[in-house]
Amino acid sequence: TSRKTPSGGSARTIIQQCSRAKVKIKPALDGADAQWAEVGEGMVVYVCFFHGATEDVTHEMANSLMTTKLFRKATGCSVSVLDLPGNVLFIPQDSLLGEPVPKRRVQYKGGCEPWWGAQLLSNLVFTCRELVAGSVKCAKADVKVEQGVYGQKQEIVLNCVEPMTLLLEF
Amino acid sequence: TSRKTPSGGSARTIIQQCSRAKVKIKPALDGADAQWAEVGEGMVVYVCFFHGATEDVTHEMANSLMTTKLFRKATGCSVSVLDLPGNVLFIPQDSLLGEPVPKRRVQYKGGCEPWWGAQLLSNLVFTCRELVAGSVKCAKADVKVEQGVYGQKQEIVLNCVEPMTLLLEF
Repeated sequence: TSRKTPSGGSARTIIQQCSRAKVKIKPALDGADAQWAEVGEGMVVYVCFFHGATEDVTHEMANSLMTTKLFRKATGCSVSVLDLPGNVLFIPQDSLLGEPVPKRRVQYKGGCEPWWGAQLLSNLVFTCRELVAGSVKCAKADVKVEQGVYGQKQEIVLNCVEPMTLLLEF
Repeated sequence: TSRKTPSGGSARTIIQQCSRAKVKIKPALDGADAQWAEVGEGMVVYVCFFHGATEDVTHEMANSLMTTKLFRKATGCSVSVLDLPGNVLFIPQDSLLGEPVPKRRVQYKGGCEPWWGAQLLSNLVFTCRELVAGSVKCAKADVKVEQGVYGQKQEIVLNCVEPMTLLLEF
């Protein structure tokens, strides 16, 4: 069964501004420490893909997420994460598909297949990294684009001093 | 100008499961420590109210948020925050109103007035606390319903070991 976001798109993102954030990408095992993907100031992007999402949407998402003026500066003007410059941490979050159904339940239907979601996430991160690599400002500031692991239990720590939470659908 | 959520509702919430979370409700001043509203295991609810939201919606929200089976247990069954039992931290977040407009900008329009938003948030917290007070399980576990401060810069720290992010509109 195909399903789209209410606005007819094929991906849903929740953006949260962060001062720093990290997601566990490998648990502690056999005496080795856990591994985290960690970023400093910038944004965390929770993302899920709906059935029918294609690579085209990941390009649109990357362009929009990196260049939309999401951040309000103290001066009052707004800048993009590329202009800030800020880091980006993508966290796959299929629970974003959830919608309430009768009997106080939540239904999680209409997501793309996990292997394809992982592929789309990887495309998204790759395209964002290309945009970062094309920015002198970002290179100077050593800006990072990191990601959590698709389909894995991901421990998260988020710190923000200037909170902003935004829903964007594509 | 009146505005509603895409689904025609008057409030938008983003729910995040947390192992613990806190929001600064009073900055450090004159040598006194900062004050935080802090909760243990449960959920953080980011919330914004659209123009036209009434007290009726806060009752519907409280009932739905507290009794919908949002949490998946290791056993596979789903339970509500009242059944878990879990804590709730509400964080007013007017940026959730944001929607992309041309020229890579984001427009924040259609929210209810701040004084009314503060009132609605207060109603919502009150109604949730009543539901918690009516649960023997919650009373035993000393469950808390806390809130951030409307219209104030709110520093946030969120920890989650079992991440779940969900969009619910009312």
